Amino acid sequence: MPMLCLDSRDPGFDSRLAALLAFETAQDPAVDQAVADICRDVAERGDAALVDYTNRFDRMNAASVDELFLDRGDLAAALDRLDPAVRGALETAAARVRRYHERQVQTSWHYEEEDGTLLGQQVTALDRVGIYVPGGKAAYPSSVLMNAIPARVAGVGEIVMVVPTPGGERNDLVLAAACIAGVDRVITAGGAQAVAALAYGTESIAQVDKITGPGNAWVAAAKRRVFGVVGIDMVAGPSEILVICDGDTDPDWIAMDLFSQAEHDEIAQAILLCPSAEFIGEVEKSIARLLPGMPRKAIIGASLANRGALIKVADLDEACRIANRVAPEHLELSVADPEAWLPKLRHAGAIFMGRFSSESLGDYCAGPNHVLPTSRTARFASPLGVYDFQKRSSLIRVSRDGARALGRVASLLAHGEGLTAHARSAELRLEE
Amino acid sequence: MPMLCLDSRDPGFDSRLAALLAFETAQDPAVDQAVADICRDVAERGDAALVDYTNRFDRMNAASVDELFLDRGDLAAALDRLDPAVRGALETAAARVRRYHERQVQTSWHYEEEDGTLLGQQVTALDRVGIYVPGGKAAYPSSVLMNAIPARVAGVGEIVMVVPTPGGERNDLVLAAACIAGVDRVITAGGAQAVAALAYGTESIAQVDKITGPGNAWVAAAKRRVFGVVGIDMVAGPSEILVICDGDTDPDWIAMDLFSQAEHDEIAQAILLCPSAEFIGEVEKSIARLLPGMPRKAIIGASLANRGALIKVADLDEACRIANRVAPEHLELSVADPEAWLPKLRHAGAIFMGRFSSESLGDYCAGPNHVLPTSRTARFASPLGVYDFQKRSSLIRVSRDGARALGRVASLLAHGEGLTAHARSAELRLEE
Repeated sequence: MPMLCLDSRDPGFDSRLAALLAFETAQDPAVDQAVADICRDVAERGDAALVDYTNRFDRMNAASVDELFLDRGDLAAALDRLDPAVRGALETAAARVRRYHERQVQTSWHYEEEDGTLLGQQVTALDRVGIYVPGGKAAYPSSVLMNAIPARVAGVGEIVMVVPTPGGERNDLVLAAACIAGVDRVITAGGAQAVAALAYGTESIAQVDKITGPGNAWVAAAKRRVFGVVGIDMVAGPSEILVICDGDTDPDWIAMDLFSQAEHDEIAQAILLCPSAEFIGEVEKSIARLLPGMPRKAIIGASLANRGALIKVADLDEACRIANRVAPEHLELSVADPEAWLPKLRHAGAIFMGRFSSESLGDYCAGPNHVLPTSRTARFASPLGVYDFQKRSSLIRVSRDGARALGRVASLLAHGEGLTAHARSAELRLEE
Repeated sequence: MPMLCLDSRDPGFDSRLAALLAFETAQDPAVDQAVADICRDVAERGDAALVDYTNRFDRMNAASVDELFLDRGDLAAALDRLDPAVRGALETAAARVRRYHERQVQTSWHYEEEDGTLLGQQVTALDRVGIYVPGGKAAYPSSVLMNAIPARVAGVGEIVMVVPTPGGERNDLVLAAACIAGVDRVITAGGAQAVAALAYGTESIAQVDKITGPGNAWVAAAKRRVFGVVGIDMVAGPSEILVICDGDTDPDWIAMDLFSQAEHDEIAQAILLCPSAEFIGEVEKSIARLLPGMPRKAIIGASLANRGALIKVADLDEACRIANRVAPEHLELSVADPEAWLPKLRHAGAIFMGRFSSESLGDYCAGPNHVLPTSRTARFASPLGVYDFQKRSSLIRVSRDGARALGRVASLLAHGEGLTAHARSAELRLEE
């Protein structure tokens, strides 16, 4: 498997790197149009439309929407059916994720000024949240935990999960994870029709305030479309890992870490930055030796060939600069003293520090969220968190004296902007 | 001016209220297409395209992009030209806005577990932010303060402001506000072309990480289009105020507060909720008496007739329930004991507590931001704040012992999801 090797001293390195990172998230107009039609139909016909599309796309035979609902009892039954070891692993992961996210809770605050004016911020949880979980083969119970637990920790009133069950096949792992994470209700529907039902509400499904969770192109297009009616999380691009290594980690570990990202998708991206050409050669050998033993070797090989790179850098300082330019979803700092380099890293979804911190530990159970900004959006975006399920209202209580002092300022500025009613509204309180 | 009067006991009140709140933010396909073309052109031709569109749409004659740049010296000169009283008002407002927003700064945190594993969150500011400011008549210096100050407080490295100057006419108030707020550089360009230049970067304009600020339909369409390449703030709908009054405030004050929202726009929304039919009658009389004296009486009248309402409620409890359903941008709690009702209010952009807290004070100088969620998005969204200019990276440093404990859990779950490389990556650290 030939993998792109670059040296930061190469002429044209900057544009090679730019080409490597380029990723066009073109939206398919045909999908967009079909999704628009489905959304409109669900908004108009409600339950009946949801049942129709679900029967058609997921080969179901539901006579009414009630047959698509699962309650906490159904989820508990799925949990009881699990292998005890797997159940234990899920519960351990959930407990760690919960503990980490509890640190993210934001609280209300206010302060009073000398004249009695009070200013502050009231933090409240969202009332109702929808979580999209893909069905079929790519069924990820870990995603259920990562979306539902922050919502529950935030204090969201009701969590509704939608998950398609093509041909009626339910995934016990996913339902068990929903049980552990505290999901209130599951609707066995997916696609744009499930997103629309959550966003607009139907006769038997209450409108939610936000929809999070991954999905295919149809789900992504539907989320973009309903954005504004409800909140959405990011529309995720392909997964990415960037490893900075000083050359002293076991090259097999580095190879496997690159694989663990590459196995997601043929357009996933795995990049190594290292100052040692010799070590890069070792990693190449590990890749060649380990790849044939991987069940998903075709996907891994394609991903590494399409979008992977091994990059020789001058030193770790330069590696940090390049990492900031890449702004990767996952960044492994596989070096002797990761703390020393941390202050130089500005843009990454999650930073895995030290040789033992493989990205896969973070995906499942370290505690932080595995829903992370991709495609350089870590320049401005954050991991999914409790803060995504809370919102703020400004608090302003102006005292009689405060209204006098502030009223003069507001009046001047409002007149400057030609907004006389604004000015008069402030002036009326001045005259009191 | 006939204004809609409702009573919450009316049969059909719920659907009347729903109709009142309904607001279709239809996107114009023709604008979308034109904006797509402009964005692509600016992405490809850079400075030259920006100059072309600016000359064409803003009746300018710039020979090169350099003629569109203003630096701190130009901004300082605009500030020096201001009337001292207005300058003082701007500086007072800026200082208050800065002081409030300093409370919003988020800081990094981490904790260590018993086995030496460290988990945390590193908070960093965005590197570079673009602020869009409308030009021409609707030039709002207060918007410059409200967008730029939170970015500066967050620690953003560079703030670039774009503002169209149709026919070359510059607005000293806007430039002076930019000076006070700490804007680094101004580009006298607007429309989709300015948004695209910031989002993609050109030869002489560095790509930004996020674009905030209000604009017309073209600007909104361009922001939607570049979302993902850069972050954006919300795409704002028409402005809204909802007043809850116990009937003991001067009815002229309430009328003027409703006007101050209505004067923004013919589709702005002003609603009063009050348990006293008599007081509602008083407010109607105030409206009739005060409206003819308002310079923007045509806009105010149209807005109140189109989308305004005076609603008689059973009591203040019901008023709070209705307010939560409306989830207004601005909520005035014009009652004797506003603190008592605050816990019942869940969804609002800003809550103005007590009779002296007119919304206009918050628009200019109370301290909190005036960029607020509209069109019921306060159900899930927050005021613009320092947090919009900071982002988080998860920190994960797993110890040798931690890798053993977590590796077993991750391995089990990864195998459950069919992701063997994830499992192997964790298992390699187990064997150590």
